[in-house]
Amino acid sequence: MASSFGKIFTVTTFGESHGKGVGVVIDGCPAGHEISLTIIQSELNRRKPGQSAITTSRAEKDQIECISGMENGVTLGSPICLLVTNSDFKPGDYNDIQDAYRPSHADFTTEAKYGLRSKSGGGRSSARETIGRVAAASVAQQIMTRLIPECSIVAYVDSVKNIEANIDPDAALTRELVDQNIVRCPDREAAKLMEQEILKAKKNGDTVGGCIRCQVQNPPIGIGEPIFDKLEADLAKALMSLPATKGVEFGLGFSSTQLYGSEHNDAFYLEEDRVRTRSNNSGGIQGGISNGESIEIRTAFKPVSTIFKEQETVTSNNESVQLKPKAGRHDPCVLPRAVPMVEAMVTLVVFDHYLRQIVFSSTMNHQ
Amino acid sequence: MASSFGKIFTVTTFGESHGKGVGVVIDGCPAGHEISLTIIQSELNRRKPGQSAITTSRAEKDQIECISGMENGVTLGSPICLLVTNSDFKPGDYNDIQDAYRPSHADFTTEAKYGLRSKSGGGRSSARETIGRVAAASVAQQIMTRLIPECSIVAYVDSVKNIEANIDPDAALTRELVDQNIVRCPDREAAKLMEQEILKAKKNGDTVGGCIRCQVQNPPIGIGEPIFDKLEADLAKALMSLPATKGVEFGLGFSSTQLYGSEHNDAFYLEEDRVRTRSNNSGGIQGGISNGESIEIRTAFKPVSTIFKEQETVTSNNESVQLKPKAGRHDPCVLPRAVPMVEAMVTLVVFDHYLRQIVFSSTMNHQ
Amino acid sequence: MASSFGKIFTVTTFGESHGKGVGVVIDGCPAGHEISLTIIQSELNRRKPGQSAITTSRAEKDQIECISGMENGVTLGSPICLLVTNSDFKPGDYNDIQDAYRPSHADFTTEAKYGLRSKSGGGRSSARETIGRVAAASVAQQIMTRLIPECSIVAYVDSVKNIEANIDPDAALTRELVDQNIVRCPDREAAKLMEQEILKAKKNGDTVGGCIRCQVQNPPIGIGEPIFDKLEADLAKALMSLPATKGVEFGLGFSSTQLYGSEHNDAFYLEEDRVRTRSNNSGGIQGGISNGESIEIRTAFKPVSTIFKEQETVTSNNESVQLKPKAGRHDPCVLPRAVPMVEAMVTLVVFDHYLRQIVFSSTMNHQ
Amino acid sequence: MASSFGKIFTVTTFGESHGKGVGVVIDGCPAGHEISLTIIQSELNRRKPGQSAITTSRAEKDQIECISGMENGVTLGSPICLLVTNSDFKPGDYNDIQDAYRPSHADFTTEAKYGLRSKSGGGRSSARETIGRVAAASVAQQIMTRLIPECSIVAYVDSVKNIEANIDPDAALTRELVDQNIVRCPDREAAKLMEQEILKAKKNGDTVGGCIRCQVQNPPIGIGEPIFDKLEADLAKALMSLPATKGVEFGLGFSSTQLYGSEHNDAFYLEEDRVRTRSNNSGGIQGGISNGESIEIRTAFKPVSTIFKEQETVTSNNESVQLKPKAGRHDPCVLPRAVPMVEAMVTLVVFDHYLRQIVFSSTMNHQ
Repeated sequence: MASSFGKIFTVTTFGESHGKGVGVVIDGCPAGHEISLTIIQSELNRRKPGQSAITTSRAEKDQIECISGMENGVTLGSPICLLVTNSDFKPGDYNDIQDAYRPSHADFTTEAKYGLRSKSGGGRSSARETIGRVAAASVAQQIMTRLIPECSIVAYVDSVKNIEANIDPDAALTRELVDQNIVRCPDREAAKLMEQEILKAKKNGDTVGGCIRCQVQNPPIGIGEPIFDKLEADLAKALMSLPATKGVEFGLGFSSTQLYGSEHNDAFYLEEDRVRTRSNNSGGIQGGISNGESIEIRTAFKPVSTIFKEQETVTSNNESVQLKPKAGRHDPCVLPRAVPMVEAMVTLVVFDHYLRQIVFSSTMNHQ
Repeated sequence: MASSFGKIFTVTTFGESHGKGVGVVIDGCPAGHEISLTIIQSELNRRKPGQSAITTSRAEKDQIECISGMENGVTLGSPICLLVTNSDFKPGDYNDIQDAYRPSHADFTTEAKYGLRSKSGGGRSSARETIGRVAAASVAQQIMTRLIPECSIVAYVDSVKNIEANIDPDAALTRELVDQNIVRCPDREAAKLMEQEILKAKKNGDTVGGCIRCQVQNPPIGIGEPIFDKLEADLAKALMSLPATKGVEFGLGFSSTQLYGSEHNDAFYLEEDRVRTRSNNSGGIQGGISNGESIEIRTAFKPVSTIFKEQETVTSNNESVQLKPKAGRHDPCVLPRAVPMVEAMVTLVVFDHYLRQIVFSSTMNHQ
Repeated sequence: MASSFGKIFTVTTFGESHGKGVGVVIDGCPAGHEISLTIIQSELNRRKPGQSAITTSRAEKDQIECISGMENGVTLGSPICLLVTNSDFKPGDYNDIQDAYRPSHADFTTEAKYGLRSKSGGGRSSARETIGRVAAASVAQQIMTRLIPECSIVAYVDSVKNIEANIDPDAALTRELVDQNIVRCPDREAAKLMEQEILKAKKNGDTVGGCIRCQVQNPPIGIGEPIFDKLEADLAKALMSLPATKGVEFGLGFSSTQLYGSEHNDAFYLEEDRVRTRSNNSGGIQGGISNGESIEIRTAFKPVSTIFKEQETVTSNNESVQLKPKAGRHDPCVLPRAVPMVEAMVTLVVFDHYLRQIVFSSTMNHQ
Repeated sequence: MASSFGKIFTVTTFGESHGKGVGVVIDGCPAGHEISLTIIQSELNRRKPGQSAITTSRAEKDQIECISGMENGVTLGSPICLLVTNSDFKPGDYNDIQDAYRPSHADFTTEAKYGLRSKSGGGRSSARETIGRVAAASVAQQIMTRLIPECSIVAYVDSVKNIEANIDPDAALTRELVDQNIVRCPDREAAKLMEQEILKAKKNGDTVGGCIRCQVQNPPIGIGEPIFDKLEADLAKALMSLPATKGVEFGLGFSSTQLYGSEHNDAFYLEEDRVRTRSNNSGGIQGGISNGESIEIRTAFKPVSTIFKEQETVTSNNESVQLKPKAGRHDPCVLPRAVPMVEAMVTLVVFDHYLRQIVFSSTMNHQ
């Protein structure tokens, strides 16, 4: 089930970037919940290309359509199929690169795996595949808003190349706040510098990467599993399944290795009747299970592989060539559009584990 | 299936650290392969406590026994059950901490999830659970040695606290080389400093963390999946499912965000008839699928949570207390013993994806 | 994953009978195979309503469309989404029965499960859902024709009410032969009597059931699993997942209980170098694994629940009522249209187990 | 996951009949429930060989041991490993039959699948494997007794060869009642005749088969899924995964094909506030989901393949031979011992679907 994700709220994406369309089937969605296609559409609009000067000018409308699983806007409990028809496909765009393996793209490995190569551009290995993930996560989010309204999931651009945002870790971030600039970085000063860096790269036919932070505010306590399906393990898989990701860390992450245990441990205390921790170095997860503090995740995105500079490469006929792409329509930096993708994957994991935990909490026998 | 891992070569671990024993069931193991219990035992010995001055003195024998799935040392194709009986259990060890949640341990979250708390120490959330993983991975490794002998998986300690090893990335590392010192760091100078740092922490009743690098040398080309089950996504999940891990990165990882795309891209060239890359910034994986270059992974381990210093905490009866553990038997640094655990998880992922790919490569129709 | 089936060739169906459309996503399809939409369409035409006087007159066109997973008619290895848009939907058809639970329908149980009832007819519990299964199985069949051309899967109507067909068990049945009459019973005499029985029931506003036999001719040897995923276990699940099925049996089935072991055992002998059995009472499967003889399955279908006679029932508001449906468009007998559904489910199981076995046969070490 | 069963309460069995032992790992068991090993043992005793004159005289003690997942007899929520050590293994028993394929046994097909043959008797394809299933089902049963105490699962021998029991379908059957004779048939007259028939077959070195009925009394309403995981589909798979089964039917089963729809439909009526059906021809399931009436299942078991008569067969070296087994220790009729196996498989399906439904019923939004 290589194209499916989630044990109870299971999403299966389908579609190539240059076929008829892309979409998702959600199996295991709770019944009786009103779902707004308008809200799904607004999430897709945050993800879609062409939304600003720092994203690709490829201009898909990404109009969502519901094929099944809802009636009069209410979930039936049956599989929900959501479909986006491709519109802005220009086959000529990719003709010149059909035979040469683009460096750090999936061309070579896809051909190694499947014995053939999609004639039409990146095919399945396109960020366009994430439309289905964002749409499915919006369904999950809308139900979570009803079932666990106190929980919010918010991501933002934390760094672009060597420019880092400076955000108060206790700030009450919201998606609205994040969306106030086109970089999706809530530190306005940093956002300006990031925008300049991205435009500079774009002008040079080059690309830049960076990091996205994501925070699950007020998560349910006790979700996650103690062994293989640890909450951070499933989150790591979810995030590393996004295109262009190269690393993920939780709480203090790699920096935690610089501390002594006595510095890193999060002391417990009582806030009225609730058990809280003085610090949150663990990032809200201990032993694979959420402790109720904010879940803190940071994900690294490499610079986009599609650049407009000459590069050495090889063709599928095993000939050495120089690849000289004409300037075209691609993202100089994937970060701003990746923010809703990160939120989507985190939402899918949190909601699925929330549903998984219901079985345990409903059937346990309190001793 | 919270305690199972892998789609074709599926391992299910069981056992509490203070029950009768711990073990694993492997379902989907190829038939007809000779498996040496002695080799499995030697891997368990690399993992087991009490092996040196810088690990816990808790001295389990960790003697492996095969209950099923083999006859005369040959796999039958049926489920392989491997069992290690617990021997060095002293119930008294944990009595004083039964009611207080140990900071940054799984006590509080486990109770939140299951509504009860194992009376006998860390229970399932113990590094002891990884015995089953290491044993299962040794079975996989022994079959891989026959089916893909050119592929090796080697991990080593790359940093302890702020001491970093300096290893030539092109060095031909082997497990034998890594095991030449008790820290399992092939940079001898750094290893000595790391050992001193660990002993210093131990003396202070404190703990330290660090990073482990793992390299898959000469992996099969074309394994991994393009969407959710990307090779790096499944590796990330595998590694983040180990106790005490806080982050994972591939290739240049977080550092890749500092480069331009033109610097980061790995140019393809021909080495005789084989497609190679000039650099390996991608860490051997592109679009979720292996390209044949070394797979490079780095995992962060936090400092161990069990320290022998007074800490603020709360009991399960919601009382604020000071936890004052008596000095006991615990690891001041988990890194040296985590090396075989990292190798084990990487082996399980690589072997499972290798088996998954067999179906594709055997049934594709070359155009 | 309640709407998914198959471990390697995984199909997920979606769609309500009265929504926008129904379809299927196939994940795990081998790459590089030419697939004819015309052949898929011809299978759907065998399944679709309105094809003869003995099926419902509801006249859907059931036009198949490929959304993803193929390019120029060749499979890419990515998920294949096949979609059929609903056309002949008349909402008024079902208004009068919205609140009364139709006896032996899924109205009551669906409401019990999901807490709501689809306003638009049978919703998901409609034979229309099987479109996705038949389409997916046609993809599998077309690839099997290339990979295991000697294997054929043929079903036919074996009985309708008390009329039983008389078919030579060694006859070389084909789908063409079966399709020579509208009942899909290759015994022409019996077929005529069956047709009369069906028309009589239709005239009376009543319905009839019957049995379908299915034969897997020349199956691969050694497919199936010894424990839970026995070939007959997975076939039984597959067939009992079709609407209106009430029983399934293999080989002699229930009649085998009338024999002594010495009568029932299938003696082995050599036919040139191939191991064959003198009789085939086992129906081609021993210990859950195929032995190469024809796999013989018989499935019982109850009479269709939708009748045009007055019936006692209850409404969702817990009122006792008499249900008096106006004569409408429904099948007096599901058997003729169920023949391609049975073939589809058997094909999905055989192909999936064939793919599963490839891993074992490719990696075993012959002793 | 060929050796695993169940989506939430997942059981994985392991062990060969002639290795060190057999057992099961249960993953997903609710926490905090007291489980009596004595009750598990009593179920195993109902299953074990040597319990009466009409079963094999092979006399295993089948002593259950709990390796993990419980503490002081209470489930921890972690994987429960239950183990039975083999004791009565006499390797010589099987030497003479090592190379000849026993007719209608799994010898030939197992060798075809795995490329080797277990040297030690039937290996995995032994009824001994069902120990793990019965033990796991007893755990499930003990928790169900607490969570859904009104629900009972009772099976009995309904026929042996051509002798059929005559049981009032409305009788309140219990396991105690069924166990009052060694045949496990609650019709005493029929039981005597069955016993004679079994002893006659035994004397002749022959075997007999028969049918087992199973009833789920007062099942939860609304469990099961509408498409592939229909309750009857999962039950059919469960029962057809038992050794020697050849068919399964629900409610009227194959007989339902003899009725008109107007005769077969189960009219709904109100019994106080509860929706009931006048008849129960459907066997308690409609559209794959339970309606609250008794679930009625009938399973056919072929006569045991191991007979003590000369039979034609072939060896693994492709030589034709006559197999002349010495009289040994085998069951002349598997039915009495199969009763607890049938109950076990039905229990595993019902409990797993009960747990699955909890997610739906807890998260639906009532319109």
